[in-house]
Amino acid sequence: MTVLVFLDPAYPAGRIADASKPQLMATDLGATRGDGVFESMLAVDGHARKVGMHLERMASSAAALQLDFPAPQVWEPAIATALAEFARVHGNAPAVVKLMLTRGPEGAGSPTAWVAASPVPESTGRQREEGLDVLLLDRGYDSSVAERAPWLLLGSKTLSYAVNMAALRFAKQHGADDVIFTSSDGKVLEGPTSTVVLAVVEDGVKTLLTPELESGILPGTTQSALFAAAEKEGWQLGYGPLEPTHLMQADGVWLISSIRLLAPVKSIDGSPVPVSRELTDELAALVETVL
Amino acid sequence: MTVLVFLDPAYPAGRIADASKPQLMATDLGATRGDGVFESMLAVDGHARKVGMHLERMASSAAALQLDFPAPQVWEPAIATALAEFARVHGNAPAVVKLMLTRGPEGAGSPTAWVAASPVPESTGRQREEGLDVLLLDRGYDSSVAERAPWLLLGSKTLSYAVNMAALRFAKQHGADDVIFTSSDGKVLEGPTSTVVLAVVEDGVKTLLTPELESGILPGTTQSALFAAAEKEGWQLGYGPLEPTHLMQADGVWLISSIRLLAPVKSIDGSPVPVSRELTDELAALVETVL
Repeated sequence: MTVLVFLDPAYPAGRIADASKPQLMATDLGATRGDGVFESMLAVDGHARKVGMHLERMASSAAALQLDFPAPQVWEPAIATALAEFARVHGNAPAVVKLMLTRGPEGAGSPTAWVAASPVPESTGRQREEGLDVLLLDRGYDSSVAERAPWLLLGSKTLSYAVNMAALRFAKQHGADDVIFTSSDGKVLEGPTSTVVLAVVEDGVKTLLTPELESGILPGTTQSALFAAAEKEGWQLGYGPLEPTHLMQADGVWLISSIRLLAPVKSIDGSPVPVSRELTDELAALVETVL
Repeated sequence: MTVLVFLDPAYPAGRIADASKPQLMATDLGATRGDGVFESMLAVDGHARKVGMHLERMASSAAALQLDFPAPQVWEPAIATALAEFARVHGNAPAVVKLMLTRGPEGAGSPTAWVAASPVPESTGRQREEGLDVLLLDRGYDSSVAERAPWLLLGSKTLSYAVNMAALRFAKQHGADDVIFTSSDGKVLEGPTSTVVLAVVEDGVKTLLTPELESGILPGTTQSALFAAAEKEGWQLGYGPLEPTHLMQADGVWLISSIRLLAPVKSIDGSPVPVSRELTDELAALVETVL
């Protein structure tokens, strides 16, 4: 069962709401226009990971949409309330914690904000274990449009995720598990709900690579935390531009995100890519240090 | 006040709901992922215009998202109920009638569908009278991507409208009223909530033009009805491709949509374009025949 906690000035620790009953206005612009922003975080043992990074990214997404963003001091008690309530219902199971912010009901002029905590879907661990068959799908944008067209909201995590969801459905119907988007000029971008990371090991030098943010991708919180941790362990870091051939020639490719964490890619467009259990274990251990 | 009527098997004529209270689940994928489709229709004197065309387009959008679409025989009584209830509250004022369909609450596996009827915003008539200052904004896609990348959902009217709303905000902040999107290869596409129509009068021959659907634009119901009516009156019809120079050289440019109807464009990127009161009146009269 999902736990809901609304941000509400009358309730400094957040207002707990019954998720089995309707709680949103039918005229909320989040529901009628996908006009809002969100974040998903993993909580383990009652502790939400990387809260600061998620709130920072969400503030940046909200700024791109010109949405007033509640201060971290308003979100944090609501997150704590949601996790306490989740623990009361689900014990110490891990939780998906979503932070939601919409432009609010039409004409109201004030945003709607809430925290939702729910159990981690079972498929999450399985994909991490078994690896992913991935399709490359054209995102339609060239890798330079983000900077010249801010109205496209590239790099913002908006509620307008219909294309991301459609791409995942397309992959599943074609026998794959997930997607890596490419730009119209042939660059590797990101997954619909994840960041692309690859490893190259050459002459004993280990390098982690990810596409450059300037291509309009979402800055990955888990990727960023992994890179910081890996650098301390002696890894070299690189930031695009990457093309599909880089993926095929890498010593390992992963999709990384806050809930599923590090999931190895085992094939791209039907062609196998090397899956290194050793590299996966090493990087997964680094991800686990990200608290 | 908005009138809400939910499609509900237990209520063959639709279930009236109180719009002043929450009516949507916080986990509805319409609200959390913009995962759904919609239509907006104008109702005058208790009669919704072009219902068949809107339901047909909505069915096509739903198919692109692989959403089960309720049959017209299910929508129609709900629309009638909404209009009767609207008339009870607002008398014979014109109404905006929205048809909404989302993928439903997460895990429920059944869509959420409702009809919302609300008064027409006052700005609507003013823009039709005064005309529009428009900016050309890059939509980021090239005009051939729609056909090769169905997962981009181009030509579908989804709830993921954050970019459309951001483009309108960008225009307003830059002193304009509305937007005409262009493709990355320089073709005229559509407005964020309207279709582009232009008129050329040469040697006594009057031609109406609009961009071609293959460029990934939404098929305009009002544009389509206007074109059919104009053809009967002796107009020639043309379907793109159009470039910004065609707009600047036309004898009239309009943004056309179901609620605002025919609104003349008076400038594009700050350069005046000719506004013909005569052509506007003639075309507006044709639009009024579209029932």
